[in-house]
Amino acid sequence: MTVTDVGGFEATGVAIGIKSNGELDMALVVTADRKPVTAAGVFTSNKMTAAPVLVSRKHLESTGGLASAVIINSGNANAATGKKGVIDAEKMCDLTAEGLGCASEEILVCSTGWIGFPLPMDLVAEGIKTTVASLGGLDGETAARAIMTTDTVPKNTFIKGEGFSVGGIAKGAAMLQPNMATMLSVLTTDAIVEADVATKLLKKAVSISFNCLTVDGAESTNDTVLLLANGTSGVNDPDALAKALNAACKDLAIQMADDAEGSTKTVFLTITGAKNDLEAEKAARSTANCQLIKCSWYGEDPYWGRIAAQIGSAGVSFDPMTISVSYGNQLVYAEGEIQILDSDTLTEHMAGRQIKLHVDLGQGGGEAEIVTTDLTHAYIDENMRTS
Amino acid sequence: MTVTDVGGFEATGVAIGIKSNGELDMALVVTADRKPVTAAGVFTSNKMTAAPVLVSRKHLESTGGLASAVIINSGNANAATGKKGVIDAEKMCDLTAEGLGCASEEILVCSTGWIGFPLPMDLVAEGIKTTVASLGGLDGETAARAIMTTDTVPKNTFIKGEGFSVGGIAKGAAMLQPNMATMLSVLTTDAIVEADVATKLLKKAVSISFNCLTVDGAESTNDTVLLLANGTSGVNDPDALAKALNAACKDLAIQMADDAEGSTKTVFLTITGAKNDLEAEKAARSTANCQLIKCSWYGEDPYWGRIAAQIGSAGVSFDPMTISVSYGNQLVYAEGEIQILDSDTLTEHMAGRQIKLHVDLGQGGGEAEIVTTDLTHAYIDENMRTS
Repeated sequence: MTVTDVGGFEATGVAIGIKSNGELDMALVVTADRKPVTAAGVFTSNKMTAAPVLVSRKHLESTGGLASAVIINSGNANAATGKKGVIDAEKMCDLTAEGLGCASEEILVCSTGWIGFPLPMDLVAEGIKTTVASLGGLDGETAARAIMTTDTVPKNTFIKGEGFSVGGIAKGAAMLQPNMATMLSVLTTDAIVEADVATKLLKKAVSISFNCLTVDGAESTNDTVLLLANGTSGVNDPDALAKALNAACKDLAIQMADDAEGSTKTVFLTITGAKNDLEAEKAARSTANCQLIKCSWYGEDPYWGRIAAQIGSAGVSFDPMTISVSYGNQLVYAEGEIQILDSDTLTEHMAGRQIKLHVDLGQGGGEAEIVTTDLTHAYIDENMRTS
Repeated sequence: MTVTDVGGFEATGVAIGIKSNGELDMALVVTADRKPVTAAGVFTSNKMTAAPVLVSRKHLESTGGLASAVIINSGNANAATGKKGVIDAEKMCDLTAEGLGCASEEILVCSTGWIGFPLPMDLVAEGIKTTVASLGGLDGETAARAIMTTDTVPKNTFIKGEGFSVGGIAKGAAMLQPNMATMLSVLTTDAIVEADVATKLLKKAVSISFNCLTVDGAESTNDTVLLLANGTSGVNDPDALAKALNAACKDLAIQMADDAEGSTKTVFLTITGAKNDLEAEKAARSTANCQLIKCSWYGEDPYWGRIAAQIGSAGVSFDPMTISVSYGNQLVYAEGEIQILDSDTLTEHMAGRQIKLHVDLGQGGGEAEIVTTDLTHAYIDENMRTS
């Protein structure tokens, strides 16, 4: 189930020719009556901000948090495209608004794909007409397919709250530290919520889901998470909505990790015993983004020496004698010495799709959790060339 | 030419059985008369400090900067080995001192190889005897072979100054941000220099050579650069010595980059126009350690979009409209727009072993240079498993 299983939203996905292989490359999520509803967005902090991010942010500001639709193309990120990029993103909103019969400021826009190439606006203009014309169904799952780039499976979620629901679609690998060009997600809900509360809840949900997922430490130019809330359920309960949003974002984040470019392992890393939470997060990100450690996961090797050496250089409080490292629930290093390294249980755990890594620093009460992936031959293959 | 082409030094390399394939794994560099000379060291800042680093640092402190010999084993880093590791490293110095007829504090010790496994001290004890017994020649190049781990070629250097010379051997991939377990280098000179000046000059030489080389951003537990200066040339000229040391370290650093694990490209990255030198270095390291960019070098793809996106998230002053990116001497991105991307000259440059990348941020006068490598299938193969 997905964005269109929430009452009052429609969606569609179409192939408009941006992707040379003829796959779906344009998606539209829209309110059923084309009227604006409460909208909130969380965007990349990369200074090389993509044009659609600039335009969507501006539209949310000018409407004070209202939107009727989100238009998305895949295959081209419209990023690093200078002034023309911004004109093109605005044009996408104009054309969508024209087709739907609403104001241009009520349209939010996202793009995902290769960075640095101008959008083929002839195809896009024609494609928006086709896309609007294809509306009328509850094709959220087709929309989820149409926003895919290097994804191998579409990502949908649906969370049932008390009297309301939250649906979502997403693509990509991570927020803030994503792979390739972009992580995008569009969420819908029939809960009642005010724009400023919606923004606050969305930021929180992103911070404990997409932001705790890192594939390669790179931060994208286009990352965007949007929420549309039409209030048709009549339920106004910010705490319940927060809970449902958190669950929806976490579900999508795990789907992203499981489908990260070329990955064979999803690694759930927990740091405890850090001096404080900030140092725990620093140690976690340093470990999760270390090429050497990522290679050892690919090799199913519980090589704790690399973990300890990496955290030893992460700039956090550290003592070689107090750090302990466990894979699965099995201690592999403690008190400055190697522990069991070759048991069948450990070998079996390392061979699974999901690896649990727990590092305790023995310095204090700081904790952090992060989800990440391994580094594989396939990752390199996918990222060697733009074409 | 190498460490033993400087007058007054001997060296040797022996296979003592730590490496299971029977390759050379113990090296000794020693003063010809077994008498202590001026000595200086620069060591890793990783808090997971390896036992031999702790012991060598202690010995240099207790002698006030004197040493007669450096004993080095490869195949096992004696790192993350707890209290036993320190006892073992001290034992290596005791046994070497006994064989040479000098004090234990006059011996410096290095180890390189896998992290986290106790040294096989029976082999090491017997091996030190064999190694000392094999002395008598100027086998610096054999010593350079005996310290290799994943290196495919030994690394030697020799710089002729005015009336003195500097020789060196090295292994590994980088200082402070090295690959695998360790970067080691031993330098010899017949120049006259006091211990505190030697330390100062060595630090400076390391900072502009090994420290400007990054392979994967990992920082090792064992990194060590040592200098022995016997003064037999009678030349006391710190400026001239500084020049020769800088040249020797730079030569060894480039040899390391060219031989970095699995690399097919050595990339010379220059950042200009940063707000200040610190921001230039931050941008340079962020670019050099980005997995996505490293993959694109492997693919010979001048994908400037990744460069701009990475620096946009590096936490430095940045404007998408003022950044420019050149590969070779060819501009590929400027004024927010793609420039030439498919000329024959550019393709030819990207296909070479050495790639020149110049990024100007258009923010100020800050500059930095860094040498790095690509990320390849072979890198993953070498780092998937400990055995």
